[in-house]
Amino acid sequence: MRYSLLAGGKRVRPILCIAACELVGGREETAMPAACAVEMIHTMSLIHDDLPCMDNDDLRRGKPTNHKVFGEDVAVLAGDALLAFSFEHVAVSTVGVSPTRIIRAVAELAKSIGAEGVVAGQVVDIDSEGLSDVGLEKLEFIHLHKTAALLEGAVVLGAIMGGGSDEEIEKLRKFARCIGLLFQVVDDILDVTKSSEELGKTAGKDLVADKVTYPKLVGIEKSREFARKLNKDARDQLAGFDPDKAAPLIALANYIAYREN
Amino acid sequence: MRYSLLAGGKRVRPILCIAACELVGGREETAMPAACAVEMIHTMSLIHDDLPCMDNDDLRRGKPTNHKVFGEDVAVLAGDALLAFSFEHVAVSTVGVSPTRIIRAVAELAKSIGAEGVVAGQVVDIDSEGLSDVGLEKLEFIHLHKTAALLEGAVVLGAIMGGGSDEEIEKLRKFARCIGLLFQVVDDILDVTKSSEELGKTAGKDLVADKVTYPKLVGIEKSREFARKLNKDARDQLAGFDPDKAAPLIALANYIAYREN
Repeated sequence: MRYSLLAGGKRVRPILCIAACELVGGREETAMPAACAVEMIHTMSLIHDDLPCMDNDDLRRGKPTNHKVFGEDVAVLAGDALLAFSFEHVAVSTVGVSPTRIIRAVAELAKSIGAEGVVAGQVVDIDSEGLSDVGLEKLEFIHLHKTAALLEGAVVLGAIMGGGSDEEIEKLRKFARCIGLLFQVVDDILDVTKSSEELGKTAGKDLVADKVTYPKLVGIEKSREFARKLNKDARDQLAGFDPDKAAPLIALANYIAYREN
Repeated sequence: MRYSLLAGGKRVRPILCIAACELVGGREETAMPAACAVEMIHTMSLIHDDLPCMDNDDLRRGKPTNHKVFGEDVAVLAGDALLAFSFEHVAVSTVGVSPTRIIRAVAELAKSIGAEGVVAGQVVDIDSEGLSDVGLEKLEFIHLHKTAALLEGAVVLGAIMGGGSDEEIEKLRKFARCIGLLFQVVDDILDVTKSSEELGKTAGKDLVADKVTYPKLVGIEKSREFARKLNKDARDQLAGFDPDKAAPLIALANYIAYREN
């Protein structure tokens, strides 16, 4: 659990969670357990994703994948325990938030990873491998669930913990969905334009696995154009907030859009 | 998720959860979401347990195991989604319980399955395979975590939802630990004394996997004697409760002790 959780990574989700909390007037420490929980869940999904029966990846965050070091059985269990601990951590360690809001956060967190969230995207993704009729609509479903759902969970949890109104939470939810699609479009582009060394993980694997990607459907240039549009749409959602407090989220959107790995 | 969750099974954990709720004065429907959540988590641990990289089982509850029907990748994801949904279900569907108690229940549920619960037992169990120095102490650690932890989670959740006092919850916790050991001792005995057909799952697999069991360490007769002692210890924990309300839990202890599959 520690090996994969503390292996570095961009920490995009916990940063989103804390930034969303601060945007609606909350404090960093109020969102910290939720931020850690979201990163635990992200790590768990990476550990399980990397298994031989899934993406069969040897490298993650520049290090051998969990099952390469500890064996497949322990990797499955480490993921399970990280998933369970994420809920325990939110329930036990969140301070200064009403119990009703904590319960709402638990429900949102669960939904973001489960059969209506990340898992939905992964299953449709698996079912689509090797199919020739995967269009933009299905690709968007996959990304909105596989990638955006947990980013959405991160900002929604942050906003819940920070005392955000329902209206604020919904704007942040839309922001996260744009960012989520953006993140995946950029990931697709990087996979075909960068080396394994530059990425810290195996490059070109989407091509090898015959997966549908934005570059494959619409080409690299149109993919980059779509990324720019998503970045703008995301920033538009933040227009009604205090610009100083929205700045970190806008910077994060730009970071996602223009990252190199 | 539905295939494995609705495949039958003894439903020992949800029954324990509801019985514990009623024992402390609560109503069945108050504990029902928690009872379902515990069964989802149990099912998830069976799906992951049955994977080729774990116990590599083909048969469960008299049907082909999840990965045999849906593939290993979907089986991993079905387990993950069941685990997530269990927390969502407790958070969203529990009615008539204070938010503070629901949060306590979420924390207990998470602890029962995670690195201090079922997973701890599974990892030590995996590490012990093929070792010749596994004694009673380590075997008890394995069973108290691998099996008892989730039964403990079931009764503690039931008692929390039913409005039980801390003292009542602790008695039920001890009851569950006895029942948990009892359950596993009986399982060990059945594995070497019954056929696959009688069990509805592969018989003799502990011998094949070279796993340490009570029958292997102390023989069948002493294992049966230990089972009787655990049954008595479990019933002793219920002495202070209304005998009518304790009757279902005592019957369940007897059912576990004297079951044939």
